[in-house]
Amino acid sequence: MYPPERLTHLIEELLKKQQVPGPEARTTAKVLIAAELRDIPSHGLLRLPDYLRMLKDRRINPKPRIRVLHQTPSTALVDGDNGLGMVVSVKAMELAMEKAAKAGSGWVAVQNSNHFGIAGYYAMMALKKDMVGICMTNANPLVAPTFSSDRLLGTNPLAVAVPADKEPPMVADFATSSIARGKLDVLHKKGLTIKEGFVQDQEGNPCTDPSILTRGGAILPLGSSREHGSHKGYCMASVVDILSAVLSGANFGPFVPPSVAYLPLKPNLPGKGTGHFFGALRIDAFQPSTRFKTDMDHWIQTFRQAKPAKGQPAVLVPGDPERKAEERNKISGISLLDKVKNQLEEICREENIPFPL
Amino acid sequence: MYPPERLTHLIEELLKKQQVPGPEARTTAKVLIAAELRDIPSHGLLRLPDYLRMLKDRRINPKPRIRVLHQTPSTALVDGDNGLGMVVSVKAMELAMEKAAKAGSGWVAVQNSNHFGIAGYYAMMALKKDMVGICMTNANPLVAPTFSSDRLLGTNPLAVAVPADKEPPMVADFATSSIARGKLDVLHKKGLTIKEGFVQDQEGNPCTDPSILTRGGAILPLGSSREHGSHKGYCMASVVDILSAVLSGANFGPFVPPSVAYLPLKPNLPGKGTGHFFGALRIDAFQPSTRFKTDMDHWIQTFRQAKPAKGQPAVLVPGDPERKAEERNKISGISLLDKVKNQLEEICREENIPFPL
Repeated sequence: MYPPERLTHLIEELLKKQQVPGPEARTTAKVLIAAELRDIPSHGLLRLPDYLRMLKDRRINPKPRIRVLHQTPSTALVDGDNGLGMVVSVKAMELAMEKAAKAGSGWVAVQNSNHFGIAGYYAMMALKKDMVGICMTNANPLVAPTFSSDRLLGTNPLAVAVPADKEPPMVADFATSSIARGKLDVLHKKGLTIKEGFVQDQEGNPCTDPSILTRGGAILPLGSSREHGSHKGYCMASVVDILSAVLSGANFGPFVPPSVAYLPLKPNLPGKGTGHFFGALRIDAFQPSTRFKTDMDHWIQTFRQAKPAKGQPAVLVPGDPERKAEERNKISGISLLDKVKNQLEEICREENIPFPL
Repeated sequence: MYPPERLTHLIEELLKKQQVPGPEARTTAKVLIAAELRDIPSHGLLRLPDYLRMLKDRRINPKPRIRVLHQTPSTALVDGDNGLGMVVSVKAMELAMEKAAKAGSGWVAVQNSNHFGIAGYYAMMALKKDMVGICMTNANPLVAPTFSSDRLLGTNPLAVAVPADKEPPMVADFATSSIARGKLDVLHKKGLTIKEGFVQDQEGNPCTDPSILTRGGAILPLGSSREHGSHKGYCMASVVDILSAVLSGANFGPFVPPSVAYLPLKPNLPGKGTGHFFGALRIDAFQPSTRFKTDMDHWIQTFRQAKPAKGQPAVLVPGDPERKAEERNKISGISLLDKVKNQLEEICREENIPFPL
């Protein structure tokens, strides 16, 4: 188990070795550590070796000049200058919140960015300002639309954070696909199969092989089959893709650049980098914050006190599991997967940084 | 088969008999007929007898004074004064678009409204103005959160309409539950069962009886089981509920008033009526409309030309089935279910209006 502060510092040092300035290295480290604390290791240190490799290869710009290309009182289009997704996204969400403070709401579409970690981090930035925070991004194409065998969409997550008064906030942060790629990898390594409803083979037939993505297979949208509503998951993923990438001028659907270093960049892309979309709604642009937050307490209590289904201990409010993990891991420390630990050790050796720092 | 114009006129006359002024009767008729044309009869004339009954009983106000309670450059809170959902919603969406024209985006939360028909109608209002239209509403509690046996959420639909250039627009309009109540009713009337993954019994056990809602059962969120991602559908339905009802001060979750006349109003409700949330994003508040719409054509063509899964004829873009139905039904006319036809005939007899008009 590693203390979060030490891992944060380690990430900062490694990013600085790749010419990322101190404040931006710290921002990136904080988002990665937030993922580890919230028990989403697929978006934590597991990603760092790829970020470092892509910085070294100049596929990610360590010192981006992030610019507002166009704006109105409540909207902006931002060019991330191919910077680290975390660095670009924190600035974009701050801009959305500035606009919300003045105009009631703020909406920022981002082009020319990269993988940004957990969407929930940016949505949650709005909570302290008594705003609803919204964040979404497109991602590498792994998901087939309903009725298709082509992989045209990413796991395209959506996060919404809503402040409450005495209760902790409601934080919904979820992929719009039926399953995340990381979970398939884990099943494959354990030699297990997966139930029907998560993946299909290269012809679009139902499939139970968790490694099928390596042979032209695809993840299914949320809902799994057309009969069970996969067209609704397809709709959601499409909306995330359009707001994140068509509205911003980034690469949409099948053209999203890889977020891993071992896959080459495709030539002749129609847009610029990966796209995100951020929103902030100021609560008191609708009604008094105190009234709203008391009502949110009531909402949260109503759901948390609902009758559990037979055999279930309790009903959860979106964000409960991640918040509890964060409280626990802040004290106990962060455990790293062996593979991640070994990779970090090797990188630290190359960079002459002691591990653990 | 009935010509759409004649049914529109019939609806107008019946609403006017209940003191709804001409323009508002026409607005309501247009939304109901749009549902019929788009092959969503569950939100069409099937609903009219309940609206008329509730108008007669003054559970719906035929002449609402719709008011803006609070506003900023890009947001507003609207009191629907317990009017017909369609009348309130068209005004609210127009206000969102007015705000978007000036401030880049417009967001309107609505309290004290009623059942509003198809969400897609209001989202599509934005298309002619080169805006992205967004619409959502909460609805009668029929859906159990993940891990719960209580019905705390509605089918809570979300609609997003995005304009294109040569291609028809992308219109996503979907419930965030695994299935609509209407479909369960049809299966039950045919004496059929339903596969697992759509409903549960009153204890939260998986269930295949389509009539289980009448005995304390519940519809499952999109995703069906926790294992298949129902927590994501639960998150989506929660976000729709919070933006529609907590932000607006309407009744959230289990407190949403019935949209049918035979169920009584519950006493001591925490909010006002049913809630909706409308949004408009002006395209050129981000980038030039012409550029965006050409890119949307590319998006739409990419998805429509995707390789179909084995056995499937073609990949659809969200909105394709409804648009094709509309083109077809505008020419062939609207067919009414026997039950709906009989109800209308009876009401027309009572009101001394010839049927068909």
